[in-house]
Amino acid sequence: MRRVLLVVQYDGTDYHGFQRQPELPTVQQTLERALGELLGEQVSITGAGRTDAGVHAVGQTATFETDRPIPTERIVPALNAILPATVGVVSAEDVPLDFHPRFDAVGKLYGYRILSRVLPSPFIGRYAWHLPTPLDVGAMQEAGGRLIGRHDFVAFSSSGSSVQDTVRTLSRLDVWRDGELIEVRVEADGFLYMMARRIVGTLVEVGRGRRSVEEVGLIVESRDRTRVPAIAPPQGLSLIKVIY
Amino acid sequence: MRRVLLVVQYDGTDYHGFQRQPELPTVQQTLERALGELLGEQVSITGAGRTDAGVHAVGQTATFETDRPIPTERIVPALNAILPATVGVVSAEDVPLDFHPRFDAVGKLYGYRILSRVLPSPFIGRYAWHLPTPLDVGAMQEAGGRLIGRHDFVAFSSSGSSVQDTVRTLSRLDVWRDGELIEVRVEADGFLYMMARRIVGTLVEVGRGRRSVEEVGLIVESRDRTRVPAIAPPQGLSLIKVIY
Repeated sequence: MRRVLLVVQYDGTDYHGFQRQPELPTVQQTLERALGELLGEQVSITGAGRTDAGVHAVGQTATFETDRPIPTERIVPALNAILPATVGVVSAEDVPLDFHPRFDAVGKLYGYRILSRVLPSPFIGRYAWHLPTPLDVGAMQEAGGRLIGRHDFVAFSSSGSSVQDTVRTLSRLDVWRDGELIEVRVEADGFLYMMARRIVGTLVEVGRGRRSVEEVGLIVESRDRTRVPAIAPPQGLSLIKVIY
Repeated sequence: MRRVLLVVQYDGTDYHGFQRQPELPTVQQTLERALGELLGEQVSITGAGRTDAGVHAVGQTATFETDRPIPTERIVPALNAILPATVGVVSAEDVPLDFHPRFDAVGKLYGYRILSRVLPSPFIGRYAWHLPTPLDVGAMQEAGGRLIGRHDFVAFSSSGSSVQDTVRTLSRLDVWRDGELIEVRVEADGFLYMMARRIVGTLVEVGRGRRSVEEVGLIVESRDRTRVPAIAPPQGLSLIKVIY
């Protein structure tokens, strides 16, 4: 038996998230079906984490086990030949049998893209939040700075989650403009359910001038979910990297 | 009565081309429905030309007539608020009542994008032809040069078209590499059905080394459709501009 780690990218638009769900198209089910076809056996994969419906990934990770003698270097081209165009495998490598894609991860990096101009775009809009109102990127960056460090991020989580420990360490939060795009990068040792989108939603309210930079620090301290003013829509979000 | 010229962009992936067809989703029908909702009357639009199923546009044009008193500068934001994310209006302007978007056009510019690398991409692959084999861009450019000028392009048309005059003047054909992308731009006073995709398909055969540069000139001269070796798939093609 061997364990293989895949790095996976996908356009999440037409999927109900990564994690398998009965009767709904998910990335996990799509990958498992392709692996099953490739290996001629039923395969279950374990992902580094779920992504929500409509969220994309360029660096999701997942493992599977097999005793089939397929050479590791054949896995990427063979899977990509089977997979639909919306899901692709970037790399495959053998890992120790006790490697776990979620528990061994020390962090995750998410990217969020905003299309900041009056005109919408059928192309960029698939991968960005279109906001025609001007945004103060400097204020967004400054507000993001209030979230860096070790905090109880319960205010930025969505209710209904079973997670007990809501303390996370946010090591990076950058906001910059690249022409008509505003890019946000946020890295932490872990993310609560909807945390990345709640952070971006809050930063955008600051960028619009509806909330102050100081208020963002107060929202964290409040530990009160109802104080987060907005949740950014899923299509702007992408899981860029799982860090081991 | 007034006539309004729209510049329209769309992600053609999920449409059966621009031109209205019974029972099938098309860009024209989508635009007419949005205009009907905006103006409160049934509206027919006239496009500069059809694009095939799966082909995109950033600069398609179309006209409609109305006697509703909507200010021209309100049309773009109002239509974009109604249209689905896959179709957008870039501009609207009043034109003379005898202006015709097809007959008054003096040329069209198409772009074609190739993703030239081993790994497919769920994101770029929606708007590009993924070709993992290396391509000789210099040879493609040189072969493209054999098509410049006034020629009978019947060899590059698809049968079944009712067009009698197959002579067109191709004024520009550029091929260049931009990182992992190869971009093709082709401008002519008009394009026959499938002409742009047949040209790109032929250039790619040259880039792969399966056909010589000289052969491309001979294919034009032959006026023989069966000599065109390949047709590029629709998702790489985009109508960039209709020239007036």
